[in-house]
Amino acid sequence: MKQLNEECGVFGIYNHNDASNITYFGLHSLQHRGQEGAGIVSSDGNKLRGHRDLGLLAEVFSNKEKLNNLIGNSAIGHVRYATSGSNSIQNIQPFLFHFYDMSVGICHNGNLINAKTLRKNLEQDGAIFHSTSDTEVLIHLIRRSKETTFKEKIKDGLRQLRGGFTYLLLDKENLYGAVDPNSLRPLVMGRTKIGAYVLASETCAIDVVGAEFVRNIKAGELVIINKDGYTIEKYTENTLVAIEAMEFVYFARPDSDIAGINVHTARKNTGKILAKECPTPNADIVIGVPNSSLSAASGYAEASGLPYEMGLIKNQYVARTFIQPTQELREQGVRMKLSAVKGVVSGKSVVMVDDSIVRGTTSGRIVQLLKEAGAREVHVRIASPRLIFPSFYGIDISTTEELIAAHKTIDEIREYINADSLGFLSEEGLIEGIGVKFDAPYNGLCMDCFTGDYVAGLYDYEEDYKNNLTEIQKQYLEENQKRFKKER
Amino acid sequence: MKQLNEECGVFGIYNHNDASNITYFGLHSLQHRGQEGAGIVSSDGNKLRGHRDLGLLAEVFSNKEKLNNLIGNSAIGHVRYATSGSNSIQNIQPFLFHFYDMSVGICHNGNLINAKTLRKNLEQDGAIFHSTSDTEVLIHLIRRSKETTFKEKIKDGLRQLRGGFTYLLLDKENLYGAVDPNSLRPLVMGRTKIGAYVLASETCAIDVVGAEFVRNIKAGELVIINKDGYTIEKYTENTLVAIEAMEFVYFARPDSDIAGINVHTARKNTGKILAKECPTPNADIVIGVPNSSLSAASGYAEASGLPYEMGLIKNQYVARTFIQPTQELREQGVRMKLSAVKGVVSGKSVVMVDDSIVRGTTSGRIVQLLKEAGAREVHVRIASPRLIFPSFYGIDISTTEELIAAHKTIDEIREYINADSLGFLSEEGLIEGIGVKFDAPYNGLCMDCFTGDYVAGLYDYEEDYKNNLTEIQKQYLEENQKRFKKER
Amino acid sequence: MKQLNEECGVFGIYNHNDASNITYFGLHSLQHRGQEGAGIVSSDGNKLRGHRDLGLLAEVFSNKEKLNNLIGNSAIGHVRYATSGSNSIQNIQPFLFHFYDMSVGICHNGNLINAKTLRKNLEQDGAIFHSTSDTEVLIHLIRRSKETTFKEKIKDGLRQLRGGFTYLLLDKENLYGAVDPNSLRPLVMGRTKIGAYVLASETCAIDVVGAEFVRNIKAGELVIINKDGYTIEKYTENTLVAIEAMEFVYFARPDSDIAGINVHTARKNTGKILAKECPTPNADIVIGVPNSSLSAASGYAEASGLPYEMGLIKNQYVARTFIQPTQELREQGVRMKLSAVKGVVSGKSVVMVDDSIVRGTTSGRIVQLLKEAGAREVHVRIASPRLIFPSFYGIDISTTEELIAAHKTIDEIREYINADSLGFLSEEGLIEGIGVKFDAPYNGLCMDCFTGDYVAGLYDYEEDYKNNLTEIQKQYLEENQKRFKKER
Amino acid sequence: MKQLNEECGVFGIYNHNDASNITYFGLHSLQHRGQEGAGIVSSDGNKLRGHRDLGLLAEVFSNKEKLNNLIGNSAIGHVRYATSGSNSIQNIQPFLFHFYDMSVGICHNGNLINAKTLRKNLEQDGAIFHSTSDTEVLIHLIRRSKETTFKEKIKDGLRQLRGGFTYLLLDKENLYGAVDPNSLRPLVMGRTKIGAYVLASETCAIDVVGAEFVRNIKAGELVIINKDGYTIEKYTENTLVAIEAMEFVYFARPDSDIAGINVHTARKNTGKILAKECPTPNADIVIGVPNSSLSAASGYAEASGLPYEMGLIKNQYVARTFIQPTQELREQGVRMKLSAVKGVVSGKSVVMVDDSIVRGTTSGRIVQLLKEAGAREVHVRIASPRLIFPSFYGIDISTTEELIAAHKTIDEIREYINADSLGFLSEEGLIEGIGVKFDAPYNGLCMDCFTGDYVAGLYDYEEDYKNNLTEIQKQYLEENQKRFKKER
Repeated sequence: MKQLNEECGVFGIYNHNDASNITYFGLHSLQHRGQEGAGIVSSDGNKLRGHRDLGLLAEVFSNKEKLNNLIGNSAIGHVRYATSGSNSIQNIQPFLFHFYDMSVGICHNGNLINAKTLRKNLEQDGAIFHSTSDTEVLIHLIRRSKETTFKEKIKDGLRQLRGGFTYLLLDKENLYGAVDPNSLRPLVMGRTKIGAYVLASETCAIDVVGAEFVRNIKAGELVIINKDGYTIEKYTENTLVAIEAMEFVYFARPDSDIAGINVHTARKNTGKILAKECPTPNADIVIGVPNSSLSAASGYAEASGLPYEMGLIKNQYVARTFIQPTQELREQGVRMKLSAVKGVVSGKSVVMVDDSIVRGTTSGRIVQLLKEAGAREVHVRIASPRLIFPSFYGIDISTTEELIAAHKTIDEIREYINADSLGFLSEEGLIEGIGVKFDAPYNGLCMDCFTGDYVAGLYDYEEDYKNNLTEIQKQYLEENQKRFKKER
Repeated sequence: MKQLNEECGVFGIYNHNDASNITYFGLHSLQHRGQEGAGIVSSDGNKLRGHRDLGLLAEVFSNKEKLNNLIGNSAIGHVRYATSGSNSIQNIQPFLFHFYDMSVGICHNGNLINAKTLRKNLEQDGAIFHSTSDTEVLIHLIRRSKETTFKEKIKDGLRQLRGGFTYLLLDKENLYGAVDPNSLRPLVMGRTKIGAYVLASETCAIDVVGAEFVRNIKAGELVIINKDGYTIEKYTENTLVAIEAMEFVYFARPDSDIAGINVHTARKNTGKILAKECPTPNADIVIGVPNSSLSAASGYAEASGLPYEMGLIKNQYVARTFIQPTQELREQGVRMKLSAVKGVVSGKSVVMVDDSIVRGTTSGRIVQLLKEAGAREVHVRIASPRLIFPSFYGIDISTTEELIAAHKTIDEIREYINADSLGFLSEEGLIEGIGVKFDAPYNGLCMDCFTGDYVAGLYDYEEDYKNNLTEIQKQYLEENQKRFKKER
Repeated sequence: MKQLNEECGVFGIYNHNDASNITYFGLHSLQHRGQEGAGIVSSDGNKLRGHRDLGLLAEVFSNKEKLNNLIGNSAIGHVRYATSGSNSIQNIQPFLFHFYDMSVGICHNGNLINAKTLRKNLEQDGAIFHSTSDTEVLIHLIRRSKETTFKEKIKDGLRQLRGGFTYLLLDKENLYGAVDPNSLRPLVMGRTKIGAYVLASETCAIDVVGAEFVRNIKAGELVIINKDGYTIEKYTENTLVAIEAMEFVYFARPDSDIAGINVHTARKNTGKILAKECPTPNADIVIGVPNSSLSAASGYAEASGLPYEMGLIKNQYVARTFIQPTQELREQGVRMKLSAVKGVVSGKSVVMVDDSIVRGTTSGRIVQLLKEAGAREVHVRIASPRLIFPSFYGIDISTTEELIAAHKTIDEIREYINADSLGFLSEEGLIEGIGVKFDAPYNGLCMDCFTGDYVAGLYDYEEDYKNNLTEIQKQYLEENQKRFKKER
Repeated sequence: MKQLNEECGVFGIYNHNDASNITYFGLHSLQHRGQEGAGIVSSDGNKLRGHRDLGLLAEVFSNKEKLNNLIGNSAIGHVRYATSGSNSIQNIQPFLFHFYDMSVGICHNGNLINAKTLRKNLEQDGAIFHSTSDTEVLIHLIRRSKETTFKEKIKDGLRQLRGGFTYLLLDKENLYGAVDPNSLRPLVMGRTKIGAYVLASETCAIDVVGAEFVRNIKAGELVIINKDGYTIEKYTENTLVAIEAMEFVYFARPDSDIAGINVHTARKNTGKILAKECPTPNADIVIGVPNSSLSAASGYAEASGLPYEMGLIKNQYVARTFIQPTQELREQGVRMKLSAVKGVVSGKSVVMVDDSIVRGTTSGRIVQLLKEAGAREVHVRIASPRLIFPSFYGIDISTTEELIAAHKTIDEIREYINADSLGFLSEEGLIEGIGVKFDAPYNGLCMDCFTGDYVAGLYDYEEDYKNNLTEIQKQYLEENQKRFKKER
């Protein structure tokens, strides 16, 4: 329902005799990060094997043979969100390359902002790409590097990349994990009781496979895991912590910890702060939009003293709605995903807490659902600031066009979604609620889509971005120059 | 995860020019009542058409042609839970019969307790069955009835059935709906703004298609809908209200109303009463087992004054776990469905509210998950009485064997699931919490699986049931003879 | 390409420890008799199991588990040609019925001409049909029979049937095979070295499983095979041999024997007689339309002394041709199935031998292919008489409308297919060429579609047939009254 | 059944408004050249689109949308035989590359004998391969060429290749076709009435789409087709005609012409010569092994004066035979593909003509089939010389191991297949029978697998080949040094 899409989750394991099964389990807990393709590559110390396909993980491996064929003690896996138009099998990861001198599996999460430039340069020099995936860019850089060892070639390649990314690589004997110089995209390391090492996009994947958290892979780091244990090296010194705030707001699972902070707790805190910043003294109940906003809603309820109720039900089953010729049918399509609980909201003044507003269409439909179910008033409270700017570091909101807050004022949005009142959490409230405390701008958060402050630069996107700034975006940038001065 | 399975949901519509699409929408909201098969039969006033198959509704109609072929202004549909061993395509409903003199679609929810006897009698008289479904029994009784009109034949057939059931029938010009003499299984009627009539297992299906609630179809009633509107006739006077309590406890969607009572509200009330009956004065937080126990848990939290937290996360995606040779892998299988939120439960004394305990294995694993995540204590509170007796009226717990409470005392169960304490809601608490007030035993609830009180008799199941009573069951029946005297 | 379709092939085996695998092999050799559905039912002496589905045999059993699940020492199987409109899974055979007192598998080949009457009578008496298949009619008659043993019930049922048919039935301990009173449809029995008995529609299926031919099952016979060996009983004395001539002309495999006569040899003979009846003194070469006419063509060549050449190639692969909007594309569709060999036919006067002409469209296209490839003249010679009348006993030409010879004279047909000359084998030539010598009309052949002489009557089809006779049909019936006087 | 596999068929069309449909038709007629994968790439003058998948053509395009999406006036297509172990989707052609400066579709038929060396050199220089296909080698050479135009880059790339090959390439505005310097693999050009140009592996594909033959693409030629018509350029002067003799013997369709000679006619001629070289004076009938040997058999019959009969029937349907635990079941597996016609062969002395013998197992089984069917004697006559040597230019017999004639003498082979006598056509007889008359060794045929004379060299295969020569191979090479002196 939300028009926000994360671009992928990664998982790797070293030294486990059920490596591909464990990778399947780990990827399953990361399925929320990508539902349109999945794959696993394993190594038995001698040979690498892989399988990948379009679809959910359980569909890709519906035939258990396909999983059991991936023998070996180490593996990497990937779940993918496919940006529109490129959802072909070629782009499904991990990629598996068999060279005359070695084999490599590789997958990644994130988005390179200089990919277009790098690809063109490589193609002009004879390189041939088989996909539109950024993953392929790195392998070309590695294979063309003048460095002498594979590890140094990787580092050489990584240094040429710009944007937000994590990469996992697997060769016969080593598992590698790399994080961009701003740690925009997350990567964590765990360890099982029997001594297998695990790398994953989120800690929930470490928990699900029964491993213990060891440490976050930090900005500009490359971790190498092999029979000698793990070593961590910096491939660049030019780093600055800027963890994607939207991971806390929307993407990550509530049971994951990012930078040591539990996501559910962070969300609940933002709900509490929101209750103070945007109170609703005369409301009767607080409800959350399932599932991502329930934590913030319970925080809002607790801080405001209002009862926390289940006013909206999410249908657990996926429905396909076909051609919907009439307006009547279209509205029923909405009701198939979310239902208002009449017995709860009827006659009430309702505070509806949501995590964010992208286009506003979904929010508008939920408000309508609640009113049709008898809600007397609907006060919408958003547990994050307005999404005014696009993001280029791995979240699928790369165009301004779809962001209602880039085009309308708060009051215009309120009118558009037909709410009785509308309030957003402040930028400062979000930073406080999340609670990270790095010695870096915004306490170490990337606030790009809220503030237009692009810590890793814009490169290939710059011209288009600057040419298409809306009035509201320009105004925000100007007004907040002073406000966030110290941050820049 | 729960070992409880409802047997089916039904939906019908009359006088809507998108009848099969609307039926698809309605069935989607009833998908929780059956996920193993689905089908729709439509009538265009002249010809009946049908499609049915194994799988989720969205899978059965993944090809939109299959839905669009079902033209006409009226339709009935079905989602099915297939009891083990009979999950063949033959049993998927609705059935569609083309006779020389008419065509009929038919589907049902529930279980007949005299089906075996009826089938044998019919076969001895030359009848041939193609399925093991109770639905086929009724059509044979109808076709062999000596009554002269189709409506009277239906009533003649219904009078020979015993058990809990709702039936929908569709011929060229009429939609019929029938409810068993105890209204054990639910059926409601709604009406859209443009005058189409809707029949459904739950009110959430009425809401989802944008219709208004008209009335419940009551014990022993047959509703006939056609171009003259609707009429309701009793096919038997021998009725007694006994609404299945487990619909409130577990099966129905929280946004549905049963007998005018909202399910979420009923569950929240049972949670409140549970907090009084089984308090946990020294606990830190209250959590619910998602999704069915969240309402009761929030009620428990509200009544006890303890914070309501999100301590368990349910993975929204279905995973298939293949061969699990080692204990380690088996335990990871559990973690794929449910995860404990370390940041929430670590170091805490946790009240874990669940709706019911069937075998105890799942409860035990959840307790273990919480303790592994650092919970200091886990106090399990169940928002319903012990499930001591099997049910034969349409819920898939027809054997005593799988019910832990038929074999172990409360303290033995507590030990089995490794909880620090365990408490169940009382029978009286459940009745009060639900809040129905019919002039009938148990205020009009069927409490069969809690009290062994079988309002519709046992028939074909009687001998086997009586021969296999456990000591705990016998003891319960004896002890409660006085307690529930007025109820019997 | 031919618009003639046989309705099904059957195979059964008793006393073989790979019964379902052998049945799969046997059915594979009968695949030419039906390609739209297949199934097998097996018995292990205690329980019957079945699987059936739409598609070719190899598709239906593409998952080997499905075949291996059909355990037991006896089995029956079926390949089906589905008449248009009834190609649903319900009609795929064998049917498997589980009654309270026994289980039965049943399948059949042929067509009942009193099915409509029987079904209506049964429905009026309360019977419920789940398919439109004639197979279901017999099982209802059996189950309602007043006879006391299952064998006598079968015979009682068979006596009520009219038309052309073979039936196989399987219960726990017996395999039954029945043939109609005119042996219109074929059934043969074989025996393997290890003593397993085999029943099949054609002897090629006996050969393919390595069995020896034992005997034909004859008109009005019921064979019962069980642990005591086989016994054959007549269920009716009212029999008259009338073997379907079209089995020799088109349907059966060339390596099969029917009534002791090899089909290839019979076809080659008809080609030789055709060469005498319709000579082509000035032609250069003889070619056959693959595959069914190659035998007759080689006979024609041998008798005429002209060289036998490969002038047409059949593409072995099935192509699906989609929307073909232009005439150009439509013609290319034809070329996908059959190609003319330029190097062979160019500049030549060609005798093109075909087995029969149904609509004439295919013949016309082949003539065009040959001329485009450079054939100077194309002389079409048909190795059977004109198909003037529909057939109702199990061949899919039940309407006069599609038969060009019912509407056009020979010269008009020649013009329609653009041949330089056209000749048909005479009725007498066909009978002589096939060479059966029974003491019965037409030497024991059913010549219905050539002569309009319906040995088993018309029953439900009579009125429609008589009302729609064309002038050519009427004229033929009149003129040949004398000619075939002794036959009638 | 034959253990000989051609490696692929190609088809291309330029300037036709149904380009992808016509390509589908053309590929269908080439399906015999490869059944394990298929694909099409089209160009609309601006954008290239492609679809490819594992399976038969009709399976790959079973969804007509997939074909209709391939819009445009030009297209190339491919059917593939996948050598064992590399049957992954990555190797299915045509490949479609989108570069920053252009897009290219490319596919090929044949085998490069210096591919390993070329790939290693390219990889060492940073190239990354995604498949094991030789097709990818050429595109890397092209993209790295220092030439300035795309056409000259293609020619530069082609000059580096060794072996037998045809390539088709498609860019926005041009269709290219290339043939190896020995014309080992065939490529022909046709033209439709409306002026569309067609390239194909065989003339049958030209016929099937209704085009006229224009010319063969000859050794070392590159044809370029675009809006200005076609031009043909030689990319190398170092050419020598050596058309693969096995195309005439086995691979090509009988209705195709190769180098102006009809394949059926060539085969019939070899049969005639075989009758003279290896007569069977006392035999009764001549039969061919369907389908590839029927032409030669009819030639043998004609020349010997013996009757030509249909003694073996090929089942048109594909069967999957599963686990075959017993010898009995294994033999039945053979009978599923081929049946002997008892009525024809029983009691006869049979001449069984086959095109070639690879391993001998199939021949042995056919002899056994015939004897079981009652043949008194079976005289095997092979319409080509012994296959003593492997082939490396695009036919799947690259190992000596599987060639029975490399290990056994003629008499040992006869014994192995249990024939009463065995005769092979001589090398001279084959050359005469085919009838090509080029001024080149062996009249312009490649006789590599008969004589060990490798016209295009061995390169990467040389060492392994020389180390594994069998005694029979060595002896043959020595003895025939004089015999074929002039040829070398």
